Amino acid sequence: MARRSDHNREELYALAIGAARQIVESDGIKALTARNVADVIGYSPGTLYNLFDNLDDLIVHLNGSTLDDLFDKVSALEQSGDPESDCKALLGSYLDYLNDHPGLWYALFDYAIPTTMTVPSWYVRKIERLMEILRVAIAPLYADTQMDETARAASVLWAGLHGITSLSNDGKLQLVSEDDVEDLASFLVTTFIAGIQSRARQ
Amino acid sequence: MARRSDHNREELYALAIGAARQIVESDGIKALTARNVADVIGYSPGTLYNLFDNLDDLIVHLNGSTLDDLFDKVSALEQSGDPESDCKALLGSYLDYLNDHPGLWYALFDYAIPTTMTVPSWYVRKIERLMEILRVAIAPLYADTQMDETARAASVLWAGLHGITSLSNDGKLQLVSEDDVEDLASFLVTTFIAGIQSRARQ
Repeated sequence: MARRSDHNREELYALAIGAARQIVESDGIKALTARNVADVIGYSPGTLYNLFDNLDDLIVHLNGSTLDDLFDKVSALEQSGDPESDCKALLGSYLDYLNDHPGLWYALFDYAIPTTMTVPSWYVRKIERLMEILRVAIAPLYADTQMDETARAASVLWAGLHGITSLSNDGKLQLVSEDDVEDLASFLVTTFIAGIQSRARQ
Repeated sequence: MARRSDHNREELYALAIGAARQIVESDGIKALTARNVADVIGYSPGTLYNLFDNLDDLIVHLNGSTLDDLFDKVSALEQSGDPESDCKALLGSYLDYLNDHPGLWYALFDYAIPTTMTVPSWYVRKIERLMEILRVAIAPLYADTQMDETARAASVLWAGLHGITSLSNDGKLQLVSEDDVEDLASFLVTTFIAGIQSRARQ
């Protein structure tokens, strides 16, 4: 039975995202349908379509809440000013999140935003503030004027670490290496930072 | 109409893999079904199940043929002995392949081998000989005795480059960087190699 007037729009939004998260955490992104979310919150699918344009839109909002979670987690770390130890602390925090919430992490990265859909600017800002934390961590490696270089290095380091974690999550890294994902990711951080320092000296 | 006796087992295998490749190249891995492959080659789905255990098995064989293709491509490059230029040449060749065959590349990386399925040893060997090419490229950075270190560095570099290319392919790298995928991947190669050299000097 649809519960027409128990909740206002904001409450419904929070309920729907909470239900989507619960479904994705327990059964994965493939189990996420408007019908399932509606069933969990006790409303009709029609009610959901007053809140979200379509299932893709709902997933983008779910992923937005995951990005918020990640931000809360990594922004709580106090940075020491030493790029290597700060990056490794961020990495550790990120890997913890991934271990605790594999379903949400898959939804964030494996879900392909349809090419017809414009990524909302609020979503880009959520990614941006996460990247900013990594840029701050590596900023001591660069002069204050080298903002572009800092940004490029942060993007490359992040994408590289993502490659290691996602291949590991898919069981594909294990086909080429016996090392732990933490060790490989840590190796990338150390080597990458040593490389930036070395190139700065040249 | 099933063509019962036109082809022997080997010919049928080649036909089936060729058809699977054609379907994946034009419509993506999601369009790949035993029925579609059977239709393309003019046999019944039952004939396919004499060749492959199931659709997963067929996909693993398709991916095996993609790994062979990649190997033919990157092993044709003559290595100069300079790790940076050799890695960049390998990277360029890899990116070319990805640009020419995005569907096959997706099938190789986005397809999750079911956890219940054992990855065949012949498949692991195909990956192994690709990794060996990268290990040879970076080998001059290490002493001959440092085989473990060389292997670890090759795995990390490969996974890092995979992160950049896969995020770029999914349109997600573009959310955090305006740089070309080639530039970002090249930045990783240069910085990573400089880092290894710098750490070796310490």
